[in-house]
Amino acid sequence: MKRIGKQTVRLSEGVTILSAASTVGPKEAEGPLGKYFDQKTEDSFFGEKSWELAESKFVEKNMRLAVQKANLKSEDIDYILCGDLLNQCTGSTFGIKNLDIPFFGLFGACSTMGESMSLGAMLIDGGFANHVLTGASSHFCAAEKQFRFPLPLGTQRPPTSTWTVTGDGAVVLARKGDGPKIVEITTGKIVDMGVADVNNMGAAMAPAAAALLKAHFEDTGRTPQDYDAIATGDLGTIGRELVVELLGKEGYLLDNRYTDCGIEIFDAEKQDTHAGGSGCACSAVTFCAYFYPKLLSGKIEKMLFIPTGALMSTTSSQQGQSIPGIAHGLVIEGCRKGAEEC
Amino acid sequence: MKRIGKQTVRLSEGVTILSAASTVGPKEAEGPLGKYFDQKTEDSFFGEKSWELAESKFVEKNMRLAVQKANLKSEDIDYILCGDLLNQCTGSTFGIKNLDIPFFGLFGACSTMGESMSLGAMLIDGGFANHVLTGASSHFCAAEKQFRFPLPLGTQRPPTSTWTVTGDGAVVLARKGDGPKIVEITTGKIVDMGVADVNNMGAAMAPAAAALLKAHFEDTGRTPQDYDAIATGDLGTIGRELVVELLGKEGYLLDNRYTDCGIEIFDAEKQDTHAGGSGCACSAVTFCAYFYPKLLSGKIEKMLFIPTGALMSTTSSQQGQSIPGIAHGLVIEGCRKGAEEC
Repeated sequence: MKRIGKQTVRLSEGVTILSAASTVGPKEAEGPLGKYFDQKTEDSFFGEKSWELAESKFVEKNMRLAVQKANLKSEDIDYILCGDLLNQCTGSTFGIKNLDIPFFGLFGACSTMGESMSLGAMLIDGGFANHVLTGASSHFCAAEKQFRFPLPLGTQRPPTSTWTVTGDGAVVLARKGDGPKIVEITTGKIVDMGVADVNNMGAAMAPAAAALLKAHFEDTGRTPQDYDAIATGDLGTIGRELVVELLGKEGYLLDNRYTDCGIEIFDAEKQDTHAGGSGCACSAVTFCAYFYPKLLSGKIEKMLFIPTGALMSTTSSQQGQSIPGIAHGLVIEGCRKGAEEC
Repeated sequence: MKRIGKQTVRLSEGVTILSAASTVGPKEAEGPLGKYFDQKTEDSFFGEKSWELAESKFVEKNMRLAVQKANLKSEDIDYILCGDLLNQCTGSTFGIKNLDIPFFGLFGACSTMGESMSLGAMLIDGGFANHVLTGASSHFCAAEKQFRFPLPLGTQRPPTSTWTVTGDGAVVLARKGDGPKIVEITTGKIVDMGVADVNNMGAAMAPAAAALLKAHFEDTGRTPQDYDAIATGDLGTIGRELVVELLGKEGYLLDNRYTDCGIEIFDAEKQDTHAGGSGCACSAVTFCAYFYPKLLSGKIEKMLFIPTGALMSTTSSQQGQSIPGIAHGLVIEGCRKGAEEC
C-alpha cells in the first residue's frame, strides 16, 4: 500500500511530467506571465463562432501541443483526463473528441488540474498506463455568460470578484523519462463553511485549501518550510490572506514562498482584475508556463501545487445553497541544478 | 504493466464489489425491477424543496447505505468517486459533502457508473486504497427541467425519447473480501457520428457502445458468447437494435444474452416510457439491484457491463453541435454456484 496518511499517498517510483503546454487568450498574454505561454490568441473567439467553441479550440490546440512537446503522438497516449467549467464539461468533450484517446471526464471545477494530474499519476504508478495526458480549461466570456451576467450588459464587478482565465493548460505524464516528478498526492474532501457569495470565490474556497494544507502537513509530518514553493489554484489576494490566517491558527507559518496562481497571472491594478485570476485554466496555465520551467531548471526543487475549486452551479446558488470548496494537492520534485538527468 | 490492448487493462488481483445499494423514485419502484431496489421514495421531491436537492438526498442516503451494507463506516473509505447530469454536478457535490471522504468528481454523463467503477478499481489495484465508494445519480424532473422543457408544460414526448431514471446506485469496491470481482476494464473513446437529435439519445450513444464492444473483443480475443450477460447503460430499444446491427457488421453476434439497462428498468408499454430508461442512475441502479445479486449468487458467472453516455449540453445543442457519445466497459466475474467463498 502506498498510503502515508488518511488523505495522502506516495507513488512508488514518481511519475515524470514529460511536457507542459499552455495556450491563453489576449488578456493573459498581456499579463505578467505573458512571455512564458506557448501559444497566445489575439481574440477570445479564436476564429470560432461562439466562446464555447473557442474554449474547445484552446483545449484541442493545447492538448496536441503538449503531446508534441513530449515527442509523442496521439496514439502513444493511454488515457486523457480533463475537465472544465461549462455545463456538462463540453469545453473538454468537443476539444478532445478528435484525439482518439480513451477518455475519463472530470468535474472538479477549478481544482480540475490537480484532480487530473492526481488520477493520471496514479493510473501510471498503478501500472495501467505509460503515458497520460491531463489538463483543464476555462474561458472568461463563456464563464461570465453562464455563471453571472451577459457580457454586453457591462455589469460592474465587485472588488472581491476574480477574473476567469481564458486558456488551457496540459501536461503529459509518463512512467519513464527525464523531468520533474510527481511523488505524493493529497486528495481533498469537500469543505463548506457556508459562504454563498458568488462574487467572493476566494473566501468560498480558502477553507478547503487550508484543510488540504493541514491534512498534507499532518500526513507527511512536514511544514511549509520544507517546500521551495507552495501555490494554490485561484484564491486570489483575499483567499490567500484567509489561508495564511487559517494555517497560522493551526501553527503553520505560510511565508512568501506561498503564492496563489490567481495572484501571479494578472497585474490586478493595471489589468483591473480585482482579487485576481480564477477558473480551471488559472492554475493549469500558471503551472505549465511559470512553475514547470522552474522545476525543470532546478530553481524549484520541491513544490506543493494545490488547485482549488468552487463546486456550485447557478441553480444551487439561485436556490440559496452555499458554495462547497475542494482542493487537490500534489508534491512535485524538480530537477537538481546541474544534474545531467532528472 | 497491466495493459492487454489499446483500451483494456487486466487488474492484477481483481477488485471485490463488496456491496451495492440502490435508492429510486416512485416510477422506478412501480417498474419490473421494483422489488429489487433497497430504498424507494413515494414522491420525487423526497421531502426537499427542489428536485435538485432531492437528487442530492438520493445520493447521500444511498451512498451511506452502500457503506453500511459493506459493514464499514465512512472513515473506512479512502476515496469517493461519483457524478451526475446536473450542471456542475451539484447532485453529487451536495449529496456527498457531509460524508467527509476524499473526493474525485467525475463527468461522464450517463456512463458515469462505468467511469467511477473503472477508476475506483484501478485506484485499489494500483495500491492507493483499500476501499473506494463509487456511484452515479440522476433525477427525471431535474433533468427534464434542465435539458428539455419545464415539466408543467406537459410537452409531448417523441417515441424515440427515453425516460431519465430517478435514483442513485452505489458500490463499495475493496482490495479484499468476498463478492463479485472486477477483473478487466475497457475504457471508451469519444465517438461522434453526427447525431444531433436530443430526443434520440439511444441513436447518439449506440456507435460509442458498439465501438467499445469491438475494442473489447479485439483486445481480449473474446466474442459475445464468452459472457453470460452483456448490459449497456441506457440505449433503450432503439439504441440496442443499432448496437446489434453495428456489431453484426463487425462479425459479432449479440444474441439475447445482450440487454440494455434502459430496457430492463421500465415496462415501456405500461409505463409510457417510449424507448426506455436513461440517465446516470439507469445503469447504476439496474446494476446494483438486478445484476449484482445474480453475480453474487452465481447465476451470472461472467458479465460485461457497459454504461453509456451522451456528452452534450443545452448550449452545445442550441449551437447546432452533434452529440458525442462514450461508453466504459467492465468485466465482472460472479461467485461460483455453491462456492463457500467468492
